[in-house]
Amino acid sequence: MERGRVVRITDVAALAGVAPGTASKALNGTGSLRESTRERVREAADRLGFVPDVTARSLSARRSFTVGLLSTDSAGRFSLPVVLGAENALVGGELSALLATARHDPVREQHHVRALVARRVDGIIVTGRTTEPREPIRVPMPVVYAFAPSADPDDASVVPDDATGMRLLAEHLVGLGRRRIAYVGGRVEQPASTVRYETLAAELASRDLEMVGPPLYGDWSEQWGRRAVDQILGVAAASRRDGGRLPVDAIVFASDQLARGGCDRLRELGVRVPDDIAVTGYDDWEVMSLASRPPLTTVDMQLERLGQRAAELLIAAIEGEPTHGVERLAPRLVVRASTLGDG
Amino acid sequence: MERGRVVRITDVAALAGVAPGTASKALNGTGSLRESTRERVREAADRLGFVPDVTARSLSARRSFTVGLLSTDSAGRFSLPVVLGAENALVGGELSALLATARHDPVREQHHVRALVARRVDGIIVTGRTTEPREPIRVPMPVVYAFAPSADPDDASVVPDDATGMRLLAEHLVGLGRRRIAYVGGRVEQPASTVRYETLAAELASRDLEMVGPPLYGDWSEQWGRRAVDQILGVAAASRRDGGRLPVDAIVFASDQLARGGCDRLRELGVRVPDDIAVTGYDDWEVMSLASRPPLTTVDMQLERLGQRAAELLIAAIEGEPTHGVERLAPRLVVRASTLGDG
Repeated sequence: MERGRVVRITDVAALAGVAPGTASKALNGTGSLRESTRERVREAADRLGFVPDVTARSLSARRSFTVGLLSTDSAGRFSLPVVLGAENALVGGELSALLATARHDPVREQHHVRALVARRVDGIIVTGRTTEPREPIRVPMPVVYAFAPSADPDDASVVPDDATGMRLLAEHLVGLGRRRIAYVGGRVEQPASTVRYETLAAELASRDLEMVGPPLYGDWSEQWGRRAVDQILGVAAASRRDGGRLPVDAIVFASDQLARGGCDRLRELGVRVPDDIAVTGYDDWEVMSLASRPPLTTVDMQLERLGQRAAELLIAAIEGEPTHGVERLAPRLVVRASTLGDG
Repeated sequence: MERGRVVRITDVAALAGVAPGTASKALNGTGSLRESTRERVREAADRLGFVPDVTARSLSARRSFTVGLLSTDSAGRFSLPVVLGAENALVGGELSALLATARHDPVREQHHVRALVARRVDGIIVTGRTTEPREPIRVPMPVVYAFAPSADPDDASVVPDDATGMRLLAEHLVGLGRRRIAYVGGRVEQPASTVRYETLAAELASRDLEMVGPPLYGDWSEQWGRRAVDQILGVAAASRRDGGRLPVDAIVFASDQLARGGCDRLRELGVRVPDDIAVTGYDDWEVMSLASRPPLTTVDMQLERLGQRAAELLIAAIEGEPTHGVERLAPRLVVRASTLGDG
């Protein structure tokens, strides 16, 4: 392909027949020039494909118009949508996004933070792999934490509102007449496992309902979802063939991956979803929630919106209006066949 | 958290008790200074957490030390590992990566390209969602295309070597004694579907083997993988119960998602994998290849390595040694239970 040289303001000025200073004023909308002169310069700039030099703008504004996106997540499962949402909002604000992925390596993270400071970014958005609070970074510019909140409550963080997500699921299941509900979480040390259980149990208690059995914790795999079904049904699956009653009429899984494994296992055992047991997931990760048989009723954490919101808060902070504390972003209930059936 | 102001070279100079120009020379390793002076300045810089201003370095070097990462992929399934690999290599080269995601929107892509030019990036890496050739971008700096090659053969592109990937799979299956092999692709208009079939058929032909039936094309879903199994087995599944012979002893799927659906369906039909029919996938997308029952023998396209290689070629081009044409990166065969069994 053809590669032209960079078009400079002097080229535009020459084509328009004005001095470089005049061309600059015409394009920046400054100075007192005749409108016809401005138009001539603008036409020349369009014709040559002139693009203003942001570096020059930075020097005069004492801002770099650049924001750092620091991600600790290599798999990208959760941080990628956050990063995309943030990038989207930054572009809308005429800012550029410097990507820095630390891959759970503190040394690498330190290197990235120093590099972003050296670039004189106007601010930094920090995203994480889980919703566990993380150590804040110490830099001389505004920072907003997205998905993984800062451990310092004085910092600005945006996190998904898991409590509301579970409340929506509980209302949905109870509204469908389900009363005997079991819960399957992922790793026991993660808030995404435990907070979801506590909210669900509290929500049911407020309706004089009790959870069936204790919460079951394992990991975040489909395999654990399948094994958890065996634990919940116990010998019931065998006795069912003798007309035995199932011990639950709904299972709430803390992720779509778990729920998908659960649906597979229930089908293998001859248990109908949702007729016998309704199933819910969490995340609305479509390769899981849509591929599941049946497709999953789940909660969409709105991660892109979350990234966007973090960018909005950061832009406000850069412009002198910082916020403090944790903002929780309401998720969205997505209803599919695993609770409603085909009907 | 505490937010200090930016530490300047004048602060370092004051603490070290030298002139700012001396401090600058000491940190840059220029000028003729006593080693003890250099050390005193370095200690002062460390103590204050001084970070040199890259903007200043850019102005003197006439380079921005920044590279654009232009991605057209919103889901990120393929482009994310490429972006991560590139970012990794760039950081090693002391470059920063400006992220720009176009989301299949040509207008957005144009906006991003202009913004990257305005930022005076030293070069741009363009990644895509599929391996179909794409229109080149026209910018006055070096560009390398990764995953999706440029339609202009004079440009530099790095793509996965699908032919080698299929050759490795064919050798593996034939080596295991499989002779009656069927193929299931994704979308018929995509090279990832068709090139893989053609290579497989040619490889078998070179060993005097023929494919069983024509290639079956559909989409990239697990559901299509399941339906394709029904098409291949036809009435055979029914006749098998009468001791009928299966029409194939291996099915090569063009993706892990397809293969996973295929394994699910074979299990439901009572066909044993790999004893009756060996199954292979493509991509080594672990949420599919490891979650499949059994786990999938597949091909890892080494997408991170591919992004890294694109960054290496771009850095070389920036330093005055451009390459031209398409470089194919060899993939890696990953052998698991879907061909080997538990044994």
